[in-house]
Amino acid sequence: MVSIASVPVGGERFVVIAGPCAVESRGQLRAAAEAVFRSGAHCLRGGAYKPRTSPYSFQGHGEEALRALREVSDELGLPVVSEVLDPRQVEAMDPFVDAFQVGARNMQNFSLLQALGASGKPVLLKRGLSATIEEFLLAAEYILAAGNEAVILCERGIRTFEKATRNTLDLGAVALLKRLTHLPVVVDPSHATGIRELVAPMARAAVAAGADGLLVEVHPRPEEALSDGEQSLCPREFASLMEGLLPFVHAAGRVLA
Amino acid sequence: MVSIASVPVGGERFVVIAGPCAVESRGQLRAAAEAVFRSGAHCLRGGAYKPRTSPYSFQGHGEEALRALREVSDELGLPVVSEVLDPRQVEAMDPFVDAFQVGARNMQNFSLLQALGASGKPVLLKRGLSATIEEFLLAAEYILAAGNEAVILCERGIRTFEKATRNTLDLGAVALLKRLTHLPVVVDPSHATGIRELVAPMARAAVAAGADGLLVEVHPRPEEALSDGEQSLCPREFASLMEGLLPFVHAAGRVLA
Amino acid sequence: MVSIASVPVGGERFVVIAGPCAVESRGQLRAAAEAVFRSGAHCLRGGAYKPRTSPYSFQGHGEEALRALREVSDELGLPVVSEVLDPRQVEAMDPFVDAFQVGARNMQNFSLLQALGASGKPVLLKRGLSATIEEFLLAAEYILAAGNEAVILCERGIRTFEKATRNTLDLGAVALLKRLTHLPVVVDPSHATGIRELVAPMARAAVAAGADGLLVEVHPRPEEALSDGEQSLCPREFASLMEGLLPFVHAAGRVLA
Amino acid sequence: MVSIASVPVGGERFVVIAGPCAVESRGQLRAAAEAVFRSGAHCLRGGAYKPRTSPYSFQGHGEEALRALREVSDELGLPVVSEVLDPRQVEAMDPFVDAFQVGARNMQNFSLLQALGASGKPVLLKRGLSATIEEFLLAAEYILAAGNEAVILCERGIRTFEKATRNTLDLGAVALLKRLTHLPVVVDPSHATGIRELVAPMARAAVAAGADGLLVEVHPRPEEALSDGEQSLCPREFASLMEGLLPFVHAAGRVLA
Repeated sequence: MVSIASVPVGGERFVVIAGPCAVESRGQLRAAAEAVFRSGAHCLRGGAYKPRTSPYSFQGHGEEALRALREVSDELGLPVVSEVLDPRQVEAMDPFVDAFQVGARNMQNFSLLQALGASGKPVLLKRGLSATIEEFLLAAEYILAAGNEAVILCERGIRTFEKATRNTLDLGAVALLKRLTHLPVVVDPSHATGIRELVAPMARAAVAAGADGLLVEVHPRPEEALSDGEQSLCPREFASLMEGLLPFVHAAGRVLA
Repeated sequence: MVSIASVPVGGERFVVIAGPCAVESRGQLRAAAEAVFRSGAHCLRGGAYKPRTSPYSFQGHGEEALRALREVSDELGLPVVSEVLDPRQVEAMDPFVDAFQVGARNMQNFSLLQALGASGKPVLLKRGLSATIEEFLLAAEYILAAGNEAVILCERGIRTFEKATRNTLDLGAVALLKRLTHLPVVVDPSHATGIRELVAPMARAAVAAGADGLLVEVHPRPEEALSDGEQSLCPREFASLMEGLLPFVHAAGRVLA
Repeated sequence: MVSIASVPVGGERFVVIAGPCAVESRGQLRAAAEAVFRSGAHCLRGGAYKPRTSPYSFQGHGEEALRALREVSDELGLPVVSEVLDPRQVEAMDPFVDAFQVGARNMQNFSLLQALGASGKPVLLKRGLSATIEEFLLAAEYILAAGNEAVILCERGIRTFEKATRNTLDLGAVALLKRLTHLPVVVDPSHATGIRELVAPMARAAVAAGADGLLVEVHPRPEEALSDGEQSLCPREFASLMEGLLPFVHAAGRVLA
Repeated sequence: MVSIASVPVGGERFVVIAGPCAVESRGQLRAAAEAVFRSGAHCLRGGAYKPRTSPYSFQGHGEEALRALREVSDELGLPVVSEVLDPRQVEAMDPFVDAFQVGARNMQNFSLLQALGASGKPVLLKRGLSATIEEFLLAAEYILAAGNEAVILCERGIRTFEKATRNTLDLGAVALLKRLTHLPVVVDPSHATGIRELVAPMARAAVAAGADGLLVEVHPRPEEALSDGEQSLCPREFASLMEGLLPFVHAAGRVLA
């Protein structure tokens, strides 16, 4: 079990981490955070530094976004998870976040993993786009071996020939990981599918496959999002996801609240 | 909704089709069939003609196996699904089976699809190992266009770089298919994972993703199976799968019995 | 070494099989055949039965196309290779073709392979879209085990995540096959890339990797082709491919004429 | 055209960069360097910092290895290419190397790319294991946009379902890149295949596909290598590769010496 501030992940409670892909403004963040809080999410996610395929795309608001995350988090009592891109950011980000997220593209950025191993704060490690399960576990081992045992694994879809969905969600990997490691495993149905309508069914399937939680993108107005709008849920859709999730969480012998 | 004999697939009831990979003997078939019947399966599966990667592997017992399937099926009242490999087999197999199965390797065997389109009997069409969702739907269209509307789609895992599981179960495809077509969609967690211990969690995830049923390999003594032993459940494991499935079937607003 | 009529494949001479994807008309076929003959191709390819993803696409002109192929072939002295889709076609096609082609979608159509094994005529077997090298060799084994030793393997690109090219040409497989089997190996750069401009460089790379020949799509007016127009060469482009190939064929210690 | 010290890459001369996967000792490095120099290689490669899948594998000899590389390089007049893993290493490595290598796992390590963009020294950027051609070009754009135009692209095989070779060498990507960008493109047949016997045929195919050069692993005693021994050539095999390459380099209208 790994605790993100006061929120244990990997125990009886199925944990939902939700929020915008990127912090775009204080207003957008607050609207998203209040919405996910009202619907029962346990942690807030939001990107301050965005690893974008193109250098000409929006790269995130950096420290300003981190300050906004901390402020909104403290107000609502929702611990914050945010992505770190560079070992040199670890120290500076530390006061602002309750868990560091390592993105799929950085799963084998070993300097970053070692720096996070030294930090002691929980790390949500996303599986690389074409990382095998063995490589995923060995990447986690870089953090563990550096002395930090607070690692949460996140399956977020792998890259395959199928392009009807953004990636292919590998729930078999989730079930297998639960047999291979004691580390908690969460699922990101937003990046895995890239399609708003598939987020809720894949969230339910994740519960049934044995996942310990979810990472979900929520935006007050997805159609205006600066990134990942097509896979972001609006507040009403997120409320409906949480409601629909409940019977499956109970079927899995777990609780949501 | 498509009916396999008296069993409707795609309606309120979540349908379980179970049985041995291949019919190896009357005794083995009967033991498997009685076990899946007792645990509440709705249809019997069993291979008479086996499409094996190597010409030197066991190729199935052919007509003898078909006769055994029909006999056991009639006794227990479990409709039979069995794989067809060749357009020339369609007519001869017709009296023995209640639905034809088309294997992944034959998804784009268009002569076979056309022959099945002309037969009028239900067809369980498995997705090719590297077929896109679009190609899968167009393969079904070959059967539909030939006049047979009784097509059931089956997601059975796709081929990816990941080798820790036999294939990668693509439940996002299931959720997407349910939005793109009125055809029923079932899931084969046995071939998808190739690992006995993962069959039950993936079966539960399939329910949660919106699938209409399952195709599961069950063998009285998996360790002695002539094919696919590692992914076959023994009767006790299958009983436990059915029991564990029930709360998820209810969570999905469906029934199992 | 396998001979297609009088043309040995797998010996000192690098063999080029060229022609239209599909026979669309006598005029189109003759124009294509004369063009490839003039530029030095050794065999004529042309589809009479086309395995199309959609049942609503052009499916080939069947027997009429076969007659045209035979006629043009006899006139020019170019042996004919044409695709067979169904074991029931083998006997009827036999007088019209000098080698049967098995398409990627049928690589594991075992009934077809067995029927071709019984025929005794050369078979050009294309690798399946996601077939491993081991599966490819075992598919060939179905033909060999049925008594036909005249099998030519054809690498035509595999399906991967990369969509900038139609498929990913796997020349490592060609080099590996040349070490694993005595069977001749040819390369289809047209299907492998799907892009006209890449056909010539990949043809040269195939020679260098150790391939024994090529399968190339040529159409008198690619922009009017009923199928695969984007990857077909016009006669002038094919002439230039042959000319550019020559120094590489010599570098490989082989001859082209 | 990009120059690594005095060696232009992307011009008439086909450029061979060779050396050990990792610098294991001064003796091993010197033996490898002298061998590749004698056989006509133009640059020396050698790893000081190794990005290993497991934290428990040999991680490279760091600065000591860099000093050895510089020393041997200066003696033989072979410019040095060595891998950088972390933006914080860029400045310290600068005096020891003539070009920085970015490994496949770091292709989208954007902080590292930006730091290299600021450095002004040539960068050999390897394609990520599952990076599309578009993502590859956009990763290069991170370096270019930061003001460094000296980028060399390196195709080193992509990750696919096929496991008979370590990766699948995508020479179609090489031919396509030569049409999409003015940047030089080199090929790493060692990592692409992972099999010693396939390195030479893939090197020849790379020339024929239009590549501007090669990156080849050479070790004085591959059977004792601490990493990548199975794909490393011994000095005699490398000499034979260079000799066999020559006619293909001439066929491509280029020179080797």
